[in-house]
Amino acid sequence: MGTAAAGDGVRPLGAPPAAEHKVNLSARRPFVEALRTGLAETLFPDDPFRGFGSRPPAARAWGGLKYFVPALEWAPRYSLDKFKYDLLAGVTIASLAIPQGISYAKLANLPPIIGLYSSFVPPLLYAVFGSSNNLAVGTVAAASLLLASIIEAEVPPEENPQLYLQLFYTAAFFTGVIQTALGVFRLGLIVDFLSRSTITGFMGGTAAIIILQQLKGMLGMKHFTPKTDLISVVRAIFHYRHEWKWQSAVLGICFLLFLLSSKHLRKKKPNLFWVSAIAPFMVVIIGGIFAFLVKGNEHGIPIVGDLKKGINPLSISQLTFTDKHVNTAVKAGFLSGILALAEGIAVGRSLALIKNEQIDGNKEMIAFGIMNIAGSCTSCYLTTGPFSKSAVNFHAGCRTPMSNVVMSVCIMLVLLFLAPLFKYTPLVALSAIIVVAMIGLIKVKEFSHLYRVDKFDFCICMVAFIGVVFFTMVIGLGASVGLSVIRALLHVARPNTCKLGSIAGGDIFRDVRHYPHARNIPNVLVLQLGSPIYFVNAGYLRERILRWVEDEENACKVDGQDLQCVVLDLGGVSSIDNTGIGMLLEVHQNLDRRGIRVALTNPKLQVTEKLVLSGYIKDKIGEEWVFLTVKDAVTACRYALQRSRSKDDGEV
Amino acid sequence: MGTAAAGDGVRPLGAPPAAEHKVNLSARRPFVEALRTGLAETLFPDDPFRGFGSRPPAARAWGGLKYFVPALEWAPRYSLDKFKYDLLAGVTIASLAIPQGISYAKLANLPPIIGLYSSFVPPLLYAVFGSSNNLAVGTVAAASLLLASIIEAEVPPEENPQLYLQLFYTAAFFTGVIQTALGVFRLGLIVDFLSRSTITGFMGGTAAIIILQQLKGMLGMKHFTPKTDLISVVRAIFHYRHEWKWQSAVLGICFLLFLLSSKHLRKKKPNLFWVSAIAPFMVVIIGGIFAFLVKGNEHGIPIVGDLKKGINPLSISQLTFTDKHVNTAVKAGFLSGILALAEGIAVGRSLALIKNEQIDGNKEMIAFGIMNIAGSCTSCYLTTGPFSKSAVNFHAGCRTPMSNVVMSVCIMLVLLFLAPLFKYTPLVALSAIIVVAMIGLIKVKEFSHLYRVDKFDFCICMVAFIGVVFFTMVIGLGASVGLSVIRALLHVARPNTCKLGSIAGGDIFRDVRHYPHARNIPNVLVLQLGSPIYFVNAGYLRERILRWVEDEENACKVDGQDLQCVVLDLGGVSSIDNTGIGMLLEVHQNLDRRGIRVALTNPKLQVTEKLVLSGYIKDKIGEEWVFLTVKDAVTACRYALQRSRSKDDGEV
Repeated sequence: MGTAAAGDGVRPLGAPPAAEHKVNLSARRPFVEALRTGLAETLFPDDPFRGFGSRPPAARAWGGLKYFVPALEWAPRYSLDKFKYDLLAGVTIASLAIPQGISYAKLANLPPIIGLYSSFVPPLLYAVFGSSNNLAVGTVAAASLLLASIIEAEVPPEENPQLYLQLFYTAAFFTGVIQTALGVFRLGLIVDFLSRSTITGFMGGTAAIIILQQLKGMLGMKHFTPKTDLISVVRAIFHYRHEWKWQSAVLGICFLLFLLSSKHLRKKKPNLFWVSAIAPFMVVIIGGIFAFLVKGNEHGIPIVGDLKKGINPLSISQLTFTDKHVNTAVKAGFLSGILALAEGIAVGRSLALIKNEQIDGNKEMIAFGIMNIAGSCTSCYLTTGPFSKSAVNFHAGCRTPMSNVVMSVCIMLVLLFLAPLFKYTPLVALSAIIVVAMIGLIKVKEFSHLYRVDKFDFCICMVAFIGVVFFTMVIGLGASVGLSVIRALLHVARPNTCKLGSIAGGDIFRDVRHYPHARNIPNVLVLQLGSPIYFVNAGYLRERILRWVEDEENACKVDGQDLQCVVLDLGGVSSIDNTGIGMLLEVHQNLDRRGIRVALTNPKLQVTEKLVLSGYIKDKIGEEWVFLTVKDAVTACRYALQRSRSKDDGEV
Repeated sequence: MGTAAAGDGVRPLGAPPAAEHKVNLSARRPFVEALRTGLAETLFPDDPFRGFGSRPPAARAWGGLKYFVPALEWAPRYSLDKFKYDLLAGVTIASLAIPQGISYAKLANLPPIIGLYSSFVPPLLYAVFGSSNNLAVGTVAAASLLLASIIEAEVPPEENPQLYLQLFYTAAFFTGVIQTALGVFRLGLIVDFLSRSTITGFMGGTAAIIILQQLKGMLGMKHFTPKTDLISVVRAIFHYRHEWKWQSAVLGICFLLFLLSSKHLRKKKPNLFWVSAIAPFMVVIIGGIFAFLVKGNEHGIPIVGDLKKGINPLSISQLTFTDKHVNTAVKAGFLSGILALAEGIAVGRSLALIKNEQIDGNKEMIAFGIMNIAGSCTSCYLTTGPFSKSAVNFHAGCRTPMSNVVMSVCIMLVLLFLAPLFKYTPLVALSAIIVVAMIGLIKVKEFSHLYRVDKFDFCICMVAFIGVVFFTMVIGLGASVGLSVIRALLHVARPNTCKLGSIAGGDIFRDVRHYPHARNIPNVLVLQLGSPIYFVNAGYLRERILRWVEDEENACKVDGQDLQCVVLDLGGVSSIDNTGIGMLLEVHQNLDRRGIRVALTNPKLQVTEKLVLSGYIKDKIGEEWVFLTVKDAVTACRYALQRSRSKDDGEV
């Protein structure tokens, strides 16, 4: 017991009585076992192969194959009954895929046919490798605009449309490679760094600028800015105001009203969801017929223009890996790929949750990766599982990924026979479709919910929103993710500690700020430490504990008492590192020198292991001062205190 | 209660009996209060102004001034008695400062006089602004080499020694600015990111290459490589082997043996610490006399060369802020500044701990910052509180920062009158001094301790060591810090969850892996969630909880039982964000649909606030299913279970 203390005339407490319940100090896992568990929790939290060990090798191989190719799981049990549902859902999403495909391709300044190509090959591959029964594959607005904004900065589409297109293919290729790699190496947790707040803000901001950009189409304008920020867009709209066409505007408002009322209908009568699902297709058809009849192109209603018949040509030879542009392609591919993953996985998860199904994030990443690699070789650009399409698929009653195959076949038929008919689609119809799709993405209710519940989350969300609207999409996304990471690190840097008081007659110990009626324990200070105890926060915790002790000592002095015992409750500490143990040691030495006893309670398995290994428990604190519950620790402190007092009295 | 569940024929449990103890759900702090507490904990963990509120304004102002100028605290109470101790300590560290100053300046390829200058001005300022009574200010080896390695890459010292020196001043200026800013904005937690493991590895690696580099001096060589990695250094030594001088080597070995034996003496007889403290000074004196007598310079024993008489000239006009080199200066200043802070604060803290004093990290940063800014204007380069000098100061019995003033005055006298005498100091003597100082920094014992206690910490340490030895110092430091941050983030990404079983007759609930004799609770699964619940880990936790539930369901089925209740113990969760609450909601919905009840226990203050605000407790889970203890929750579950069973029996 502290020699320095003896010199100061302070007598530390003697040994406590044997506690009723003991902490299991011997539960030490061998290193390999601990490493295995740690790696498994980090990389295989879903433990995909559990229960495999007991099966024969052939069954194991088959199980493994089924794990990687989920189609083998559902295909053998597929039935005509299920097909009926999938057929209906597939046709419905195909009718959505055609206008959306063309619109989003226009949004990315690509030839509209690329949008149709992108709805043909990727869904087929997803049907084989995907694990979600509800996801419908296609292009997405936000990622299209993000890709366009990054690639346009390097290669303006008007100057070199061929290279521009090639960079889209190349970016899709890198997206696929990165997504597959993330899935194979089980690094799905990178996607976790896009928090819900970030995505809400980013999507809202993107939707806002996409809506603004559609004023170009709605007003029938020919020239526009490649920039995406609010100020540039508004300036461009007024700069080219001599190009405004009233014919386009009138037609656009009619389409908007039609689409909005179909959406309203869906809210009122959820059973009529199919009306809003095929409304965009109707707009394209009606608009096309109208433009054909009135020769719209000559009367201020620009049309899509020629669409070639025939399915996707190969584009593998168009992938460019030249030094000059490969960086742009990698950057665009990475950012849009992560964004697409976040959207696709979130959508798949939330739909699976409703049906009580499970989807596997890492498997999804591999599926997305494979479909994007294959897509980049067959004239497709980035695809994922967009929310609007997947929700329609879900509501149309899809049963398996077969609905994607049905959609794919429909698109193939369109490409083979009907594509030229879409030539007359007015651009204003596409703009109206995009605007209506985007309105729902600005979630004002979610913003206000965030503001109410968590101001910091609200900030993260607003940084993304404002960053996207006023600067660039990359800046908005980056700033928001950065702020999220800083928040996570700050939390690690400043874990909560609190002083516990006794309630319920001394059986239960809780935070005195939370339970103001909790009673102080005389001569004993109980502190609950936050988790984890790490090099980042060890310094802070040391200062904080010593400050608690000082405050308590001062409070004790007022009552004419002495602080004799500090109980550190480690129950909430799930992890400790070497610096953290050093901190505990320093606190122990410091308190020991003041004649204050330190007791620990309820260390968890991982913490117990390290405390034992480092010799802290045995050499410093003593096994008899480690307790299972706070109650035991307080009882022991009081007992030891009484004994030392009666001894003092005896000596006197 | 879940409508879907009702459809499936599963009946969720009815309301539980009123619990004995209630969770305080109304303890909600106003936003401003919560923000204030959060900011105070993050930025003012030491709460420097506590207790100020009750004093009159004048006393408050005086207290504030004393806070920022600690000298005002100790100077009025200074006495002759204390001065005796400080005088002895100051003279002792001055005798160490002279050889170290010259040596480390040579290490940084600077004129040796700069090392003496740097021991004159900065200690004076530290004495006024510093809060540690034990720290002795001076230059340090690791930061000197780091600065040299960064600046040499931009400006070779042989080609443009004037600009090289200017960049050192400029770097010191930026170091000062950054350190002051960190202190003022109370961002000391950046230094916390240098973990003990990183510093151990980095210092060890640096010491190893510094020792190797001293072979240049020991062998009397003239040419060498500016690179610091092992391979370059060894290659340079053999490449210039025609420059080897046996005279230098012999003298060097003599000095080495002398210094090592003085060090050994100190270990054997701690009272004779002053022998080892002045031994370097002795080496310089004896070496100088010897070199003078034998005209060493002409016989293979290179000497330091001319040293100008006079105190520090002003160097404020030499600070260069031209575009071309300012980046290098900022980079060098930032890295060396953070490193110097980490060393200085760690040394100050560990010495204060022994004396039971407190030092204030943020105040120290401001003191270091001020002394470096002032230093950069008076021909000094980076200074901090080196370990070796401070330990000597401590052992020599210093009482206050006055010992720094004494040292400073001694150095001033040397500069004014004796500097030219040091002209004859053989370089080999300096090399021997550096080698002996560095040997102690390779802490093999600490490495093996890390290996035993924490393999990951050992990796972090080894990455720093190997990075420094085989690549560059910046790479070693960066990789090690990066690995530490990844580890911290990984911990946040994968918090520990565990299943609890009952021990001690059902009163206490603990991890079943830690306490193998803990008993299962029939029909109830108790899960303890790790902390914090954040967007980074929300996805993981959802999967993990659902997997626990599935495993438990399967286990229940084997026994012919049903899982009816899941108790989530939030006692260890110190923080939750919006994504985390969303996750709890999803888990709740999923389990509800399966007819499984969710109960929460013991949410902490911050968590309770958010759960209440988000409406989760009131609208979803119901206040009656939030309990103060796991025992209450389990009792309630069992009671509700029994009642629903007896009801079923009644109906049948």
